[in-house]
Amino acid sequence: MQSKILSRRDLDFLLFEWLDAESLTSRARFVDHSRETFSAALDTAEQIATDLFAPHNKKSDCNEPTMCEAGAGAAIVAIIPEVKTALDAFAAAGLMAAGQDYEYDGMQLPCVVEKAVMAWFTAANVATSAYIFLTIANANTLLKCATPRQVEQFVRPMLAGRFFGTMCLSEPQAGSSLSDITTRAEPDPADGPDGERQYRLTGNKMWISAGEHDLAGNIVHLVLAKIPGPDGCLIPGVKGISLFIVPKFLLDEHGAPGERNDVVLAGLNHKMGNRGTTNCLLNFGEGKYQPGGRAGAVGYLVGAPHQGLANMFHMMNEARIGVGLGAAVLGVTAYLHALDYARNRPQGRHPTEKDPVKPQVAIIRHTDVRRMLLAQKAYTEGAMALVLYCARLVDEQHSADTQAARRDAGRLLDFLTPIAKSWPAQWCVEANSLAIQVHGGYGYTREYNVEQFYRDNRLNAIHEGTHGIHGLDLLGRKASIQDGALLRSVSAALTRTVAGAHLPGVAAELLAYAAQLEASWQQVEAVTTALYACGDLNKTLANASVYLEAVGHVVVAWMWLDQALLASTRLAGAAALDADFYRGKLQACRYFFHWELPKVQPQLELLASIDTTTLDMQDAWF
Amino acid sequence: MQSKILSRRDLDFLLFEWLDAESLTSRARFVDHSRETFSAALDTAEQIATDLFAPHNKKSDCNEPTMCEAGAGAAIVAIIPEVKTALDAFAAAGLMAAGQDYEYDGMQLPCVVEKAVMAWFTAANVATSAYIFLTIANANTLLKCATPRQVEQFVRPMLAGRFFGTMCLSEPQAGSSLSDITTRAEPDPADGPDGERQYRLTGNKMWISAGEHDLAGNIVHLVLAKIPGPDGCLIPGVKGISLFIVPKFLLDEHGAPGERNDVVLAGLNHKMGNRGTTNCLLNFGEGKYQPGGRAGAVGYLVGAPHQGLANMFHMMNEARIGVGLGAAVLGVTAYLHALDYARNRPQGRHPTEKDPVKPQVAIIRHTDVRRMLLAQKAYTEGAMALVLYCARLVDEQHSADTQAARRDAGRLLDFLTPIAKSWPAQWCVEANSLAIQVHGGYGYTREYNVEQFYRDNRLNAIHEGTHGIHGLDLLGRKASIQDGALLRSVSAALTRTVAGAHLPGVAAELLAYAAQLEASWQQVEAVTTALYACGDLNKTLANASVYLEAVGHVVVAWMWLDQALLASTRLAGAAALDADFYRGKLQACRYFFHWELPKVQPQLELLASIDTTTLDMQDAWF
Repeated sequence: MQSKILSRRDLDFLLFEWLDAESLTSRARFVDHSRETFSAALDTAEQIATDLFAPHNKKSDCNEPTMCEAGAGAAIVAIIPEVKTALDAFAAAGLMAAGQDYEYDGMQLPCVVEKAVMAWFTAANVATSAYIFLTIANANTLLKCATPRQVEQFVRPMLAGRFFGTMCLSEPQAGSSLSDITTRAEPDPADGPDGERQYRLTGNKMWISAGEHDLAGNIVHLVLAKIPGPDGCLIPGVKGISLFIVPKFLLDEHGAPGERNDVVLAGLNHKMGNRGTTNCLLNFGEGKYQPGGRAGAVGYLVGAPHQGLANMFHMMNEARIGVGLGAAVLGVTAYLHALDYARNRPQGRHPTEKDPVKPQVAIIRHTDVRRMLLAQKAYTEGAMALVLYCARLVDEQHSADTQAARRDAGRLLDFLTPIAKSWPAQWCVEANSLAIQVHGGYGYTREYNVEQFYRDNRLNAIHEGTHGIHGLDLLGRKASIQDGALLRSVSAALTRTVAGAHLPGVAAELLAYAAQLEASWQQVEAVTTALYACGDLNKTLANASVYLEAVGHVVVAWMWLDQALLASTRLAGAAALDADFYRGKLQACRYFFHWELPKVQPQLELLASIDTTTLDMQDAWF
Repeated sequence: MQSKILSRRDLDFLLFEWLDAESLTSRARFVDHSRETFSAALDTAEQIATDLFAPHNKKSDCNEPTMCEAGAGAAIVAIIPEVKTALDAFAAAGLMAAGQDYEYDGMQLPCVVEKAVMAWFTAANVATSAYIFLTIANANTLLKCATPRQVEQFVRPMLAGRFFGTMCLSEPQAGSSLSDITTRAEPDPADGPDGERQYRLTGNKMWISAGEHDLAGNIVHLVLAKIPGPDGCLIPGVKGISLFIVPKFLLDEHGAPGERNDVVLAGLNHKMGNRGTTNCLLNFGEGKYQPGGRAGAVGYLVGAPHQGLANMFHMMNEARIGVGLGAAVLGVTAYLHALDYARNRPQGRHPTEKDPVKPQVAIIRHTDVRRMLLAQKAYTEGAMALVLYCARLVDEQHSADTQAARRDAGRLLDFLTPIAKSWPAQWCVEANSLAIQVHGGYGYTREYNVEQFYRDNRLNAIHEGTHGIHGLDLLGRKASIQDGALLRSVSAALTRTVAGAHLPGVAAELLAYAAQLEASWQQVEAVTTALYACGDLNKTLANASVYLEAVGHVVVAWMWLDQALLASTRLAGAAALDADFYRGKLQACRYFFHWELPKVQPQLELLASIDTTTLDMQDAWF
């Protein structure tokens, strides 16, 4: 039976047929790997995700973590036991370090394969998987800028799954606007255990996923805070921000969790979805504990002072691709559930069948149901393609043969990242809504799975930068920096796909789509120029969200054409099952070019007109 | 402080400035009414909704009805007590009969005013209000086709709020396809208490909202079932369907609830939203009770045998407008919550403000937030306008002066009903999503209200006919029946609005929108012709959902232009607050014509091309 978590056939197509992950094995870092080792990692992931992650996905949603008093005024969190069992199995399989160096007991998997491996866990249970991804993101950040001793003390236990990590950025008054954080880090007159300079942190952090739990021996909080100047004042803006490690338990001389640090759970947020992931308000240094007999939560500076945001953003590209991947796979799993339902649910007859004695047909035979399934396929497989293409660019950026290739991959990746984060978060929620619709009333009930995917997925347009923030990032930074070099990198890559449609033997239909894509992209370039030519930054950026959405649709059309070109060459001589798969790719491409890409036309026209409707709207008129 | 439930200013604009509800008081049925009595009804509604419905909306969501054993194997439902308190107050105010004849202790309010009154309750608490609307819909159906005795026994107590009603259509295997229901109604050899012919029903009904509770003295189930032919077989198709009253408690000789009928709760559906409304699987005649010492649930035939569906559909237009209204007001209340939040939440600075020492600004000052608020305003006030316009047509259909006017209103109403049901269900969920987005992470938590509106509202594209069913209804029936007379009625009405833009003194901008609207409508007419000219019903109807969505957007553009024309004439000489209100209407109209109406262009082009992408898609290719 085909898995309803992910389609392995599609993953194999994307990884091995389309993105040629196998070619990476010729590079020094991946020389021990082969198609077989990649497949083995995917097999392991599928098995653990199927056996231990998926089964408690609904239970975790229905039994969200609760805050309990733990004596002495301290609060802990109660989580259903299946979560720890699943995470322990994940760590025991060595997967926490799947992408890391051998030196850290890692597997040195390429990013594109690692992301495909992780996709299984997110699709099976996004809430339980969140504990993993925060730990990996935390470890990746520290590996970029921490001292060897910090790596030894905190990163190694995380990569072994003994400690888990968090990212503590937001505060109640500072969400999208990180420059306004007020958590203070005062230098501690006393040194840390090994003579390391230490700080005392005080402040409140909001929206801290995995901020409190008993799933691992320690929690390594990565905290943005400000070191006061000589006058005791905080430096305004992002320039004053530094990065700190603040462990839940201080380490003893053997590196084992010891004395309790003064980081305490002040409250849990109760979310619409992702309920199984604790999401906490944490108080630092409020005085509940007095580590070392002094006030303030003990923290260790990571990297240089005042470089906190830059250091934190080391991992932002990958974290954002991770969000896009999460959105995409929640789309895929809901689509597979809807597909299964549509094949098995009899209801109604064709419009031309008037005989009520004839048996009802499976609803997949209704055109409107196929429309909803085909839209889901186009959105979710398009999103998967985009996200894995970006992951492949990470590999190119790190290990391509020439400096020029690495730089070019980096530019492409920088441009595509806000799209890879935002497009799946928008369109795979739409896919989830269609999955509900295919199920009819059943889809609206918690007895079925799809409503949870819809609720879970709605988060992705909010966290790791809201939709609006990524619109500003794409139009306000990525489209203009380096004198437009990022945009030119995308043009060059997209033009290579278009050129591929002109090779002999390509079907006329795909050639027509290539022309359609090329024309849309030229419009994007012209609109970008026009938006900057208007000379008023407020007008340039007013409709940045529309720019993000329009460019996103063009980019995904490109992903579809590129997949379709490959599918059309593979179709000749393919075995029956494979032929069906390739025909599905071609039909989804057709859907995207007939139904979806035309939607950008009015968006690009709106942008080209430098429309000020929203800019001109006044508070008093609402 | 402005209510966050609904905007009374906008309601007053729609009812009294735009739809001229006051003019109805010149008609015989409404001659006792005045602007003052209409306003008093709205005041009462606002007060009860604010005081007794809104306060338990979240509590009801968090504490959904549970099934409890009630001894002897029977199950009852436990519901938080605030629900009954609210419903009792509603009934005590006489509102259950707000639209009914004086003869039934009704208020004889026009439909358009009644809908506006009911809007307060739905917006404040959709789950508690559902008990009301099912009862009203049930009563309206019975008033159309029941016997005087049935009206006396069942309708009067419902209109007084002593009994509540349900609509029992769907079965587990027959949702959208009602022709496949299998509930049997066998003639009972024994007569009913007053010599009335009675039936014994057996079968299972699914998705029965308000199907079990203790909120009223009795539950009057309106049940679709089939009377077997002489051979004992059920007549296939819709022709075999009859309509029955099946009370939870049989009535004694005084009309009071007496012996328990054999309708029992078999299970509750646990929904994503609308959690406070019980939604039941009911078993009829399974033998738990033996009313009158015999097997089968006792039912009374309503209207002629085999006319069940036609009788049930008497109330479908109004029920569907009710669904559209529910979707619209859930959009409005979320919008008002988001607006309030955006005015009070400081976060970030303008793109051109680089000084981090400057205080953060309220997020309504960010253009992208205004985009999201303006879109919500355009969607939700557009939906309100459409729904109330339809309610006004109900009044015209029933009480216009000439038969021609009544017939024309009926045609307009028939065409617009699938749109009034579906457009708000689609776009006001989108508005709810934007309301979440305006709140950022807070919006994703259950500590705030907007995520519940989003969950509650997602039902509306499913019940009372799915989105796809209404697409088929609009394109497959409404656009073609009576040789296109319905479409021509819309053309005539829309053309009157366009002509209004050509009057002297109208701003050039509105004249341009009128031309844009006229051109879009002409495309709709051409596309309709082309779809039927293709000669293959499967192709004609393949993309009916796109037709529904495109026509819906054109119709709402029409509603916006019509409102804007009025606002522009009122603006001259208006007091400051009023002027702001009218400017808001004009800006929302501008938004709709710049941002929304252009979206139909690619949809209409797709339809005109008789696109077969979804029709051609094969099961095996997914």
